[in-house]
Amino acid sequence: MESPFSLHPQLAADTVPVGDLALSRVLLANDANYPWLILVPRRPGITELIDLVDNDRLALMRETDAAARALKAITACDKLNVAALGNVVVQLHVHVIGRRHSDKAWPKPVWGAAPAAAYDPALRDGFIAALRKALKVT
Amino acid sequence: MESPFSLHPQLAADTVPVGDLALSRVLLANDANYPWLILVPRRPGITELIDLVDNDRLALMRETDAAARALKAITACDKLNVAALGNVVVQLHVHVIGRRHSDKAWPKPVWGAAPAAAYDPALRDGFIAALRKALKVT
Repeated sequence: MESPFSLHPQLAADTVPVGDLALSRVLLANDANYPWLILVPRRPGITELIDLVDNDRLALMRETDAAARALKAITACDKLNVAALGNVVVQLHVHVIGRRHSDKAWPKPVWGAAPAAAYDPALRDGFIAALRKALKVT
Repeated sequence: MESPFSLHPQLAADTVPVGDLALSRVLLANDANYPWLILVPRRPGITELIDLVDNDRLALMRETDAAARALKAITACDKLNVAALGNVVVQLHVHVIGRRHSDKAWPKPVWGAAPAAAYDPALRDGFIAALRKALKVT
């Protein structure tokens, strides 16, 4: 019997949940420096994009694009960064990050560039509400 | 009339061509630290994944996966990193990088981690030949 999906503890610790799309759990990174979503396909034991079965791979592409469009629409960011790295946390996850020319890491990638900044709770809740509406999740 | 595709000069300077897939030009980064491919859809004026028309987006996903499978098969790398950033070079391009636990940047992302290392020309030519065979390009 296949083991059930469970979110990697490091991803759980570093994010707050936005909601579940058909395949992926959508998380908001606890870092006010950048609007930063992480999509985690709810499939156990997957570490690489190419490990997904074909239908899941296609779904993840569509959901990644939906997350990117939502981020761009809500934040009016200057650039999107989309990446599946997984060198530290092996559970497959896709970063979708809205970048601004004025952000702390620009033009470098965000990973390791600056300590995470705390969100104002009201701003974060408003952002999550807007994301849920755009992604049609609860 | 739409302007024709031309490769961004920075991408041309930092890579050697592997070949053209149906949509993407496949390039090998001039950096022997990592087996590192870059896919550039041959569409002018595109900067984001979500700017591609639907068929092109799907083709890019398939070609990214083919490049990842080829890299993994040829190099037996430990992890794949796949990313569309484009903060410096705005022309849409997707990085497909084979990572090893022993490489210079591990477990950090490769961008900016170490100066590019020169390839031994014979090793590079052999690698490109293997990539062309795996990707069925000339």
